[in-house]
Amino acid sequence: MSLNKEKLYIGIDIGGMTIKGALICASGEILSESSTNTDCASDGIALCNNIVKVVYSLIDKADVAKEKIAGVGIGSPGVIDSINGKIIFAGNLKLQNFPIVNALSELLNLPIKITNDANAAALGEAKFGAGKNYKNSVLITLGTGVGSGIIIDGKLFEGGSSAGAEFGHTVIVEDGLPCSCGRKGCIEAYSSAAALMKRTRAAMTDNLSSHMWEKYIPETVTGKTAFEYEKTDKAAKEVVDWYVKYLVCALVNVANVFRPEVIMLGGGVSAQGKNLTDRLQKLFDERVFGGNAYAPVKIVAATLGNKAGALGAAALFI
Amino acid sequence: MSLNKEKLYIGIDIGGMTIKGALICASGEILSESSTNTDCASDGIALCNNIVKVVYSLIDKADVAKEKIAGVGIGSPGVIDSINGKIIFAGNLKLQNFPIVNALSELLNLPIKITNDANAAALGEAKFGAGKNYKNSVLITLGTGVGSGIIIDGKLFEGGSSAGAEFGHTVIVEDGLPCSCGRKGCIEAYSSAAALMKRTRAAMTDNLSSHMWEKYIPETVTGKTAFEYEKTDKAAKEVVDWYVKYLVCALVNVANVFRPEVIMLGGGVSAQGKNLTDRLQKLFDERVFGGNAYAPVKIVAATLGNKAGALGAAALFI
Repeated sequence: MSLNKEKLYIGIDIGGMTIKGALICASGEILSESSTNTDCASDGIALCNNIVKVVYSLIDKADVAKEKIAGVGIGSPGVIDSINGKIIFAGNLKLQNFPIVNALSELLNLPIKITNDANAAALGEAKFGAGKNYKNSVLITLGTGVGSGIIIDGKLFEGGSSAGAEFGHTVIVEDGLPCSCGRKGCIEAYSSAAALMKRTRAAMTDNLSSHMWEKYIPETVTGKTAFEYEKTDKAAKEVVDWYVKYLVCALVNVANVFRPEVIMLGGGVSAQGKNLTDRLQKLFDERVFGGNAYAPVKIVAATLGNKAGALGAAALFI
Repeated sequence: MSLNKEKLYIGIDIGGMTIKGALICASGEILSESSTNTDCASDGIALCNNIVKVVYSLIDKADVAKEKIAGVGIGSPGVIDSINGKIIFAGNLKLQNFPIVNALSELLNLPIKITNDANAAALGEAKFGAGKNYKNSVLITLGTGVGSGIIIDGKLFEGGSSAGAEFGHTVIVEDGLPCSCGRKGCIEAYSSAAALMKRTRAAMTDNLSSHMWEKYIPETVTGKTAFEYEKTDKAAKEVVDWYVKYLVCALVNVANVFRPEVIMLGGGVSAQGKNLTDRLQKLFDERVFGGNAYAPVKIVAATLGNKAGALGAAALFI
C-alpha cells in the first residue's frame, strides 16, 4: 500500500555493450531490472531510443504507474556536462556534445539527470552499499580502466564543470607505463584489471616454469589468475606484490587529498575481498600522511557489484 | 564613518619563525599589520600569548574598538582539526593535540577559528587575490615545502576531518626522491623551492663550467638561480626543464581531480610569474584529461604574496 504514495526512481547505466536499468524505491530496494544492447554507433538518438525501451520495460515489469517515477538518472561513460545535461565526449559511444538530457526529456516526459558512470557507481555505493554509513567516501573501480567517484558530505563531487574526479588519470609514475589517456604512469596503467592481466601474462611468458601455466595460457589469464596462484608460485606472488604496491600508492594519494572515512574498491579485482583489502590497509596505514590514527581511512570492497551504477544514477534524484 | 558600522576581521598566520597578523575589512582592505616571533618551543600557551600580543597590537594600530572584531582566524602549519579547533600535530611548532581555539577564546574573548596554513592562503587568494573571480580554485605553494589549498564553490575544502588537501604529499614518482613525509616521490620532493635548489646545486657541482658559478656557489643558490641563467647556460636550462616537467605533472593531477577554473601558484618560485606560468600552461593544455577546451583551467601566479595566509585566516569569518 505504501507503494501507492512512495516516489520511485529509475537509474540507467550506459555501458559500452549494455544499457542496464533499475527501478528502485528511495531505500534502494530494486523493484525491477531491465537491459538492452547499447548499440548506438555514434547515433545519440538511437542510444536514447534504447534507453526509452529500458525505461518502459522497467515500469512495465514493476507494474507501477509512470506518474510515480520522480526521475530518470543516467550514468554514462566519458566526459559529462552534468549541469547542461550533455555527453561532451564518450569514446566508447562515439558521441560528442550530445544533449542527452534534453533528448530524453522530450522522449520520456520525465525529469532526467546525468553524471559520469564512475560517479554514479560511487553515489550508489555511498547511498546503498559499502559507503552507506559514511559521509565522506571514495569509490575506486578496478576494471578495464580505473574509475573514481567522490562523495563529500553525502554529496557527489564531480569537479568543476563536472569534469574532474578522474583519479584513474592521475600520474603515480612520471614517464611510467602508457595510459589510455595519452599520459604515462597514470593509476589506470598500474591498477586496472587490464594492467594486472598484462603483468600476469608477462610473468608467465618470462617464467615458463610458473604454476600458472597449469591452468592458464596468456590468452585465458584473468584478473584472478595471479591471486589464485600467489601462495604456491613465486611469479604469481611477484605480480600480486607489484599490483598491491602501486594500488597502495594510489590509495594513499586519494586519502591525502580527500581523507574520506572509507575508500571502496569496486570492479572485478575487488572480488578478492579481504584478501586484498587487508594487505592494502596494512601498507596504507604505514604511509598515509600523518598516520592513520587521526582521521582513519578504511579500505573496503564495494558491495553492490555491477548494480552500483544504475542504483547511483537513480539516486541522483534521491 | 562606514567603519563605525562595519565588522572587522583579524587573521593570524603562524609560521615556523614568525607570527604575522592582519586586521582587515570584509573587502580585504588591510587596516593594520603586526608580527612577532613564534618562539613557542612546544609550549602551546606561550604560542597563544604571542598571538594575543599580535591581536592587541593590530587593534591598537588600527585604532578600532575590540567589539568591532567579528573573529580571529588562525592559519597554522601541521595537521589541524578545524572542527574541534585543535592542532593535532605541527612538527615546526613541536605541538601535538593542542586545543588552540579553546585556549585563545579564553584569552581573547573573541570567536576563534583555525585551519591549516596552506588552506588559509588558498582562501585568501580565492577571496581577495588571484582567485577572486572564480568559484573553484586551487592554490599550490612552492616554498620550502609544497602546500595546497582547495576552494570548491567558493568554500574551503579541507578534506574529511580537515585532514586532507595535502596535494604536496601525493606521489608522482613511485620510489622517487625522498620526501619529508617519509614517502618517496611526492610532489613536494620535486616541486618545492627546496627541491629546485637541491637540483640547481647538483647541476653546478656536476658542471664546473656552468655560468651559474659566475655569481653563485652552492651555498648561495636560491630558487631563482637556475631561472636567472636558463637562457645562457645549458646546465641551468636542464634544471628548469626538469622542474617544469614534474610541476606540470603535478598540476595536471590536480586538474584531473578538481578541474578548477584556475590553479594559482604561490611561494617563492611563483615570483617567476608568466615566464613560468606560460610554459606550464602550454604543456598542461596538451596533457590535461580530455583536453583543455571543455572546462579550461588557467595557471596563474598568486598575487597576495606572504599576506595570503593572514588574509585567508581572517576570511574564515567572512
